[in-house]
Amino acid sequence: MFKRIDKLQIDLPKLQQPDPESAGVVQELLGGRFGEMSTLNNYMFQSFNFRSKKKLRPFYELIASITAEEFGHVELVSNTINLCLDGSTGNGSTNPDDAPLKQVAGMGNKFNFMLGGQNALPVDSAGKPWTGDNVFSSGNLVNDLLHNFYLECGARTHKMRVYEMTENQTARELIGYLLVRGSVHAVAYAKALEEVTGVNMMKMLPVPNLDNAKFSHAQKYESLGEHRKLYRFSDDDYTLLNRIWKGPTPIGPAGELEVVDGTPEGGEIPDLLEVPEEFAPGFDEEQFRELSKRLQYEAGL
Amino acid sequence: MFKRIDKLQIDLPKLQQPDPESAGVVQELLGGRFGEMSTLNNYMFQSFNFRSKKKLRPFYELIASITAEEFGHVELVSNTINLCLDGSTGNGSTNPDDAPLKQVAGMGNKFNFMLGGQNALPVDSAGKPWTGDNVFSSGNLVNDLLHNFYLECGARTHKMRVYEMTENQTARELIGYLLVRGSVHAVAYAKALEEVTGVNMMKMLPVPNLDNAKFSHAQKYESLGEHRKLYRFSDDDYTLLNRIWKGPTPIGPAGELEVVDGTPEGGEIPDLLEVPEEFAPGFDEEQFRELSKRLQYEAGL
Amino acid sequence: MFKRIDKLQIDLPKLQQPDPESAGVVQELLGGRFGEMSTLNNYMFQSFNFRSKKKLRPFYELIASITAEEFGHVELVSNTINLCLDGSTGNGSTNPDDAPLKQVAGMGNKFNFMLGGQNALPVDSAGKPWTGDNVFSSGNLVNDLLHNFYLECGARTHKMRVYEMTENQTARELIGYLLVRGSVHAVAYAKALEEVTGVNMMKMLPVPNLDNAKFSHAQKYESLGEHRKLYRFSDDDYTLLNRIWKGPTPIGPAGELEVVDGTPEGGEIPDLLEVPEEFAPGFDEEQFRELSKRLQYEAGL
Amino acid sequence: MFKRIDKLQIDLPKLQQPDPESAGVVQELLGGRFGEMSTLNNYMFQSFNFRSKKKLRPFYELIASITAEEFGHVELVSNTINLCLDGSTGNGSTNPDDAPLKQVAGMGNKFNFMLGGQNALPVDSAGKPWTGDNVFSSGNLVNDLLHNFYLECGARTHKMRVYEMTENQTARELIGYLLVRGSVHAVAYAKALEEVTGVNMMKMLPVPNLDNAKFSHAQKYESLGEHRKLYRFSDDDYTLLNRIWKGPTPIGPAGELEVVDGTPEGGEIPDLLEVPEEFAPGFDEEQFRELSKRLQYEAGL
Amino acid sequence: MFKRIDKLQIDLPKLQQPDPESAGVVQELLGGRFGEMSTLNNYMFQSFNFRSKKKLRPFYELIASITAEEFGHVELVSNTINLCLDGSTGNGSTNPDDAPLKQVAGMGNKFNFMLGGQNALPVDSAGKPWTGDNVFSSGNLVNDLLHNFYLECGARTHKMRVYEMTENQTARELIGYLLVRGSVHAVAYAKALEEVTGVNMMKMLPVPNLDNAKFSHAQKYESLGEHRKLYRFSDDDYTLLNRIWKGPTPIGPAGELEVVDGTPEGGEIPDLLEVPEEFAPGFDEEQFRELSKRLQYEAGL
Amino acid sequence: MFKRIDKLQIDLPKLQQPDPESAGVVQELLGGRFGEMSTLNNYMFQSFNFRSKKKLRPFYELIASITAEEFGHVELVSNTINLCLDGSTGNGSTNPDDAPLKQVAGMGNKFNFMLGGQNALPVDSAGKPWTGDNVFSSGNLVNDLLHNFYLECGARTHKMRVYEMTENQTARELIGYLLVRGSVHAVAYAKALEEVTGVNMMKMLPVPNLDNAKFSHAQKYESLGEHRKLYRFSDDDYTLLNRIWKGPTPIGPAGELEVVDGTPEGGEIPDLLEVPEEFAPGFDEEQFRELSKRLQYEAGL
Repeated sequence: MFKRIDKLQIDLPKLQQPDPESAGVVQELLGGRFGEMSTLNNYMFQSFNFRSKKKLRPFYELIASITAEEFGHVELVSNTINLCLDGSTGNGSTNPDDAPLKQVAGMGNKFNFMLGGQNALPVDSAGKPWTGDNVFSSGNLVNDLLHNFYLECGARTHKMRVYEMTENQTARELIGYLLVRGSVHAVAYAKALEEVTGVNMMKMLPVPNLDNAKFSHAQKYESLGEHRKLYRFSDDDYTLLNRIWKGPTPIGPAGELEVVDGTPEGGEIPDLLEVPEEFAPGFDEEQFRELSKRLQYEAGL
Repeated sequence: MFKRIDKLQIDLPKLQQPDPESAGVVQELLGGRFGEMSTLNNYMFQSFNFRSKKKLRPFYELIASITAEEFGHVELVSNTINLCLDGSTGNGSTNPDDAPLKQVAGMGNKFNFMLGGQNALPVDSAGKPWTGDNVFSSGNLVNDLLHNFYLECGARTHKMRVYEMTENQTARELIGYLLVRGSVHAVAYAKALEEVTGVNMMKMLPVPNLDNAKFSHAQKYESLGEHRKLYRFSDDDYTLLNRIWKGPTPIGPAGELEVVDGTPEGGEIPDLLEVPEEFAPGFDEEQFRELSKRLQYEAGL
Repeated sequence: MFKRIDKLQIDLPKLQQPDPESAGVVQELLGGRFGEMSTLNNYMFQSFNFRSKKKLRPFYELIASITAEEFGHVELVSNTINLCLDGSTGNGSTNPDDAPLKQVAGMGNKFNFMLGGQNALPVDSAGKPWTGDNVFSSGNLVNDLLHNFYLECGARTHKMRVYEMTENQTARELIGYLLVRGSVHAVAYAKALEEVTGVNMMKMLPVPNLDNAKFSHAQKYESLGEHRKLYRFSDDDYTLLNRIWKGPTPIGPAGELEVVDGTPEGGEIPDLLEVPEEFAPGFDEEQFRELSKRLQYEAGL
Repeated sequence: MFKRIDKLQIDLPKLQQPDPESAGVVQELLGGRFGEMSTLNNYMFQSFNFRSKKKLRPFYELIASITAEEFGHVELVSNTINLCLDGSTGNGSTNPDDAPLKQVAGMGNKFNFMLGGQNALPVDSAGKPWTGDNVFSSGNLVNDLLHNFYLECGARTHKMRVYEMTENQTARELIGYLLVRGSVHAVAYAKALEEVTGVNMMKMLPVPNLDNAKFSHAQKYESLGEHRKLYRFSDDDYTLLNRIWKGPTPIGPAGELEVVDGTPEGGEIPDLLEVPEEFAPGFDEEQFRELSKRLQYEAGL
Repeated sequence: MFKRIDKLQIDLPKLQQPDPESAGVVQELLGGRFGEMSTLNNYMFQSFNFRSKKKLRPFYELIASITAEEFGHVELVSNTINLCLDGSTGNGSTNPDDAPLKQVAGMGNKFNFMLGGQNALPVDSAGKPWTGDNVFSSGNLVNDLLHNFYLECGARTHKMRVYEMTENQTARELIGYLLVRGSVHAVAYAKALEEVTGVNMMKMLPVPNLDNAKFSHAQKYESLGEHRKLYRFSDDDYTLLNRIWKGPTPIGPAGELEVVDGTPEGGEIPDLLEVPEEFAPGFDEEQFRELSKRLQYEAGL
Repeated sequence: MFKRIDKLQIDLPKLQQPDPESAGVVQELLGGRFGEMSTLNNYMFQSFNFRSKKKLRPFYELIASITAEEFGHVELVSNTINLCLDGSTGNGSTNPDDAPLKQVAGMGNKFNFMLGGQNALPVDSAGKPWTGDNVFSSGNLVNDLLHNFYLECGARTHKMRVYEMTENQTARELIGYLLVRGSVHAVAYAKALEEVTGVNMMKMLPVPNLDNAKFSHAQKYESLGEHRKLYRFSDDDYTLLNRIWKGPTPIGPAGELEVVDGTPEGGEIPDLLEVPEEFAPGFDEEQFRELSKRLQYEAGL
């Protein structure tokens, strides 16, 4: 089971300018083959399908608790896309005859505006849907761990490239954070593989071999020690993570790897306003007020 | 963010007999167009993409908290499939030349044994992968709620049909529970639609119009009042659910709708044993023992 | 524009026995790459996209009017599938706990019973959806005609094979008819190609080179002269078909090709009864009666 | 069966300027998840698969006759795309070395020019093919009607957005007309649902809640009463539509709903000229003349 | 460029009995995610896309020459499927009315008989087409090598499982050979990774950790030293393979790794006879004779 | 089996300017429905699946040897794409914070830079993956040959259009060559069809009916006689090609068709340099040097 917390894992800076083009490339990190939907669902299904949970408890717990973090990554990427999209249409008129969505016709990521109402979707940067074929859950622990290690390296390559495609500060803050957290997962799977097979996988890191510190928004999170922390993302479970997550960090500023109880402190979920030309959510001030009054809640109007 | 609890939402009965054929049809309820991957991801993305969260707070919270329950449904279906698959191969030999996976050749759900190591995958009953095209997140609240209501009705049709396809007690326990919980979500979206539009949607329920009480494994959960409860699935958030979830239940045994703090009490996650002919997880007793000793955990050997 | 007639192109014999297996293979002729959805949509889009309609009028009319016939083929195949499926489930009980859909678990075409309520769907024999990638509309007339000729030959191969897979009399009646009508279209495109390029395409027919007369259910329709008739499928339009469709028939019993005004006389559309275990359509006798009374129509009860 | 009429449902205005970008977004209304291929095929298959046709005759007829109208919508959208594409390439030369298709390289809808010869295809605005997975035909009448109602609302959202993306008068004329006709279908399914379940679905309309009258090209058709008319699209059949389609119109200018015999009067199908650089259709004037002479038809040269 | 040799890499034993069921599972090894189409195309595209070929020559040559071997693997798997399918239909009659393809209706791999004429296709065991999404070509050498190593391990898991699903001697001979050759490629990529990163990847092998020697048909090829040989598959190129492929073999019977010039000696390509009920190839003896005479070749009749 | 030669079939001119837009449209000729992946795989599978190889030897050899040429076409298109992409990113900095991939955000073919590291992929111009559904291998020789003839005509249409979309000299050199070689294959299949059926297919050529000579880069290769040559692409096999490939050429400058032993002389494979901002291949000069020294090869540094 899962419990939800109405917070993001970090605070995402608000943009000065709408930036739909950056939203378009960040979609690859959401619904692309190496996007967060892939990491989430791979670990989720592997945790469901894990055999001999008791006999291999620390390995099971590692995959199970990382799954919980990945949910938050999907959430974080989606919110980043929404922030980048926000305000990118409209011309001061709500009259359809004035073509208030005219900007969309020339964009590469029309899907964000046609199927979505100026929002994120589980598709890649070309609008192709994420698919269950991206999930590998073979049941063989070494094969699954090897896959996960490879997946994190492939995902890192993609994140690094998308970082280089945009100067958008929200997108970069997202990617900086994800680079550091993704490296944590790469190290975690490397250590697990090493425990089982004796192969010194960590020596291969980072793939590609450019340090997180070269990305200013990643450096920030390494300086906070985020590269050394593995969160349990659970109230009472997954207490054996420290059987694998221990010793000095193989990447980033020196220090000991540590298991952290619970979740990161987190940041606020952005509350983006209505977009009349998208009919999202499709109410005017009076209707908001009327609903708020009838259902007796504080709508902040 | 999400936190994970190492429990299922209910206890799933262990099978007396392996039943791979039932596993094959239950896959439709996992990765089919109307499976739990679809309900999960629809509500998850709608909650990320919700605009005017403050102005429409109870609606946002409804979708956001149901998302958390859906994660548990995906988990529950996956575990049911794994229980049905367990033990369905093998002939007493671990010698590959003795063809210990011979049973698979005649099965319709070979994917559970070839790509998966006798385990669940995010695909439908024919092995086609779940796809992001199953997600509808238009940004227009009425359109999204209408979709969700339709989705729950379509999902109910599928669950009822799969129930009728199997006599397997684990599969039926799963479906009985999901029928009741799915009805809760259908009622929730109907009530939300009713609050916004004034249309008496609940009068349409159930779709198809056969009561849950006709399914003995659903009746059990209705008699426990599960049809009246909406769990918050959160420690501190989603406190406005009762603005929508209130009044007498429109379906099932009479009573008042109630919001329940936290999660269901839950049941144990099955710990299925190794399947040598699938190389899942790929260790023998000595290797388990050696790992347990080296990493200092209790492996129950 | 199109007008609809509440009739099939031929009478389909009722089955003595349900035959879901034959339904499963006939699905290939509906939604497979060479199924009727493909012929329909190829000609439909080519007719929409035809350039220089006036300058090449007879060619435009040929493709446009054949499109109308193809709608009827899709209808005919769908009804055949439904007839084959009818009655294939149920055990005398409508109690879900008695598993009245138990038969489905072992079938290869579960989709007909899970997504469909014992009915046809636009998918192939493995349940894969028909896709717009099956449409070729290049705008180049010779290329399009060559494609259509190839498509009809490929479709004929498939029909001949499916005929050989089933002894079902309804399925064979369908295929016998389609073999003859498909040959008409192959000849039509061959003649059109011949008019434009001078190549004697008809000499290649039939592909594969086994005469329709070898299939008893096709022979029946050839003996009725169906291989020589091209229907206009229009009240007032497509009057130039005889510019291309003329001369002696190159295949089947000797005779002159002739353009027939209007449509075939046609046969009755089967009215299959309700299937309670599929919730299709989901009413009992009393509800039928009540609706019939309230809306004042003759329900034949 | 179907008969074809060589007319469009309305007259489409000729463009002053080629507008391939608008063609690109209108493709979503053809082959997108909520495009006309989806409405057509959903109703077509539901009409084929309808069980208890006699017992539920008016409902069967409603779905069956709307199918016929939808064919005309697919035709109308395709012709609009072709009009928008027309003339968008070429530089006065037919010499390939002069790169007369140079304009295409920078376009988002290259598929219209590469696979198509400057014409419409059954794909969405990103070139992804329409798929049979977009069809819902469950056999349960309430579930199917609910789906259809939801589908029309989703389709309306998309049409409104595309309208706002373009100032093209042909595209807007198309969408204005489709908004009005789509609303007719939404009302039709709402009334059918209301007859069966007693739920006042019409109260929810329009979704999204912006009147057609706000779109000048839709207002035109409402002022002609098109929002009150349901065409039979048949010579002799579907005579019970007035059992459901009756009473005052719930949307648009006041008046009584009326069933209209036959089809709309309709407009002329555009006859677009050859595009040498696309080899569409691939003839020069002399070849046209030669064919016209040999086959004895009036080619208007 | 490539040159072709009209031989298989090994001799495939002829079957005593048709075995379409084994053909169905072996299809996974052809067109499945981890089938030979995937290994072929991954290495082929990586070899085309390799940057700094001169600076990293031995690595380029390794991937380039393995590509050539993979073509032969695709050929070998296809021929095995064809051998398993051969003779699986027919009832002594070539009269379509006698239903000589009746056997197919109950099979899981109908595609081999409907789309194919009793032959292999680039699809997986469920008939889903192989797709270019299975190709990973990131341009980063370590990431690509890591992928290739993971791919070979995943492919090995699948081969081992399919081996255990069939007792068919042709299928096992194929898989035995592929297990040994696949291990050669796994070792090759492990050694390449080790040269670049210093990580002792070979220590992880085999994945899954069951020796090839446990599979009698693999043991045969190991005893012939096939696990130690890397063929150049080229007349004059790829002469630096021994910079990486050297030292003692890390798996299988002890010995030194060796680069072999040219190709394996190879075996005969089976020449399967006509299948009249599939119209494959669609000629009778007289027609064969007539063609042979007219084109003056020895047809062995 | 296949042997590889480290050469391209022709020399590709180096570009003066990067031209990612042309790379984007050339992708259609690689992974599109009518791209070289399609011709390759169709002929490859048809050659594997050919029945009665001895009885129909010249036909088998024709398809088998053309397969080998097609591998080289895939290689040639991939290299052209890589040449067009080369140098299209970067701003003099290798600091990720300077956004050295900024150019990509506005491109239509982002996949070449995100999934690929500035390189070709088996996808079409919109990034959709090539799929095995593009392969037709029916087993019926006439049907397969007819398909191949149609495929070559469709592929020619596409090549001609892409030629007209770009002024890039590398892309045009590629397409000029492919137009001539594709015509050879069209003629080959036409002649084979003519031998079997007596239909004068060659009279239809070229489709579309614009001579290769109108494309200056194709004219060059026709003037070299490339339109008359069929290469054996084999050392010792396929010696009966001249049974079909004989007589005067039906297209291009007059002359006799001739079978050529072996392969074309060929051209150099481009060795593109590292792209640091893509981490392709991910080494700096010192690392290159170190590897070269350790593995003892000449790296040209």
